[in-house]
Amino acid sequence: MPLTRISLRAGTTEAYRAALVSGIYAAMRETYAVPDGDLFTVIHEHAAADFIFSPEYVGIRHGENLVIVQIVASATRSTAQKRALYAAIAGNLGRDPGLDPAEVVIVLVEVSPENWSFGHGLMTYGPSES
Amino acid sequence: MPLTRISLRAGTTEAYRAALVSGIYAAMRETYAVPDGDLFTVIHEHAAADFIFSPEYVGIRHGENLVIVQIVASATRSTAQKRALYAAIAGNLGRDPGLDPAEVVIVLVEVSPENWSFGHGLMTYGPSES
Amino acid sequence: MPLTRISLRAGTTEAYRAALVSGIYAAMRETYAVPDGDLFTVIHEHAAADFIFSPEYVGIRHGENLVIVQIVASATRSTAQKRALYAAIAGNLGRDPGLDPAEVVIVLVEVSPENWSFGHGLMTYGPSES
Repeated sequence: MPLTRISLRAGTTEAYRAALVSGIYAAMRETYAVPDGDLFTVIHEHAAADFIFSPEYVGIRHGENLVIVQIVASATRSTAQKRALYAAIAGNLGRDPGLDPAEVVIVLVEVSPENWSFGHGLMTYGPSES
Repeated sequence: MPLTRISLRAGTTEAYRAALVSGIYAAMRETYAVPDGDLFTVIHEHAAADFIFSPEYVGIRHGENLVIVQIVASATRSTAQKRALYAAIAGNLGRDPGLDPAEVVIVLVEVSPENWSFGHGLMTYGPSES
Repeated sequence: MPLTRISLRAGTTEAYRAALVSGIYAAMRETYAVPDGDLFTVIHEHAAADFIFSPEYVGIRHGENLVIVQIVASATRSTAQKRALYAAIAGNLGRDPGLDPAEVVIVLVEVSPENWSFGHGLMTYGPSES
């Protein structure tokens, strides 16, 4: 169910962005109880003037390779699972496409399971209809 | 109050996208207690490399016409209203622009009513200022 | 921690958009307990056909200069802080870039503090790891 929205500077290759998508999805599968086939990711490339960030926050330096990952997902995971997800995303992207783990910013937006419809106008995870 | 963010593959006509916007708004008016004039929708068109999804999830097949609809709205509706909204969106878009209802993925992001300002720097739905 | 997503019609100058970013960030610093350096903003420019809104809502008229500001932030602020944030954003943008305060629509999406990683795969604000 996660809807992942990746924002980054324009100018990367399709293969680079495909590695971002794959690494995030693999991390979700490994750590975040995301079922097989549950992959929905959109990517927004931004010109420098439209992708603004401070060079340092909480002691971590960010540069032009910064990738911001916003994940909308059901609020069914523990703090430990969130922690594991962050580590797995940064680790996977560090290996491929070789992104400095400092450059990975993640935010989780949590919603109720009943807030999803995956097609046919049906509530996918909600209670049975009375 | 809903802020609707539609993501789809690039290449559709303006009329097609206008039908998406109209059909979603009409569904909200019919089922989701959205008042007249409460229409705020942005559309993101993505190249194929930047719009990634699995070909099947929860037994529903998704193809290149997939439309992902993310709706930020106040958390004031019931489960039954959400269910009705999903059905109405898929039904409306099936009629116009003729989108296969399997291709409609929806997620609701719920916020507090006090989380909106519709202009002039005012809290639109919050408690009276003391 | 806020992740700010600005949506507006295409056609503004970089200086105009930089003033939007600066004014929103300054408002957060002044009113919303946002620490120095906590600036992450992406801008989406839309063609007219992809940026749809009603000409009037709750008695406020919106036109082609409309700016929609979606802010994902931790759910740690009071109603009074939200009210102050809206006023500060509209006030700042009214001064620079000179945007009519009626044209500023804001929505806050609140998340748990543990929902952020600002790099290195670490949970930035979560409880200490046991």
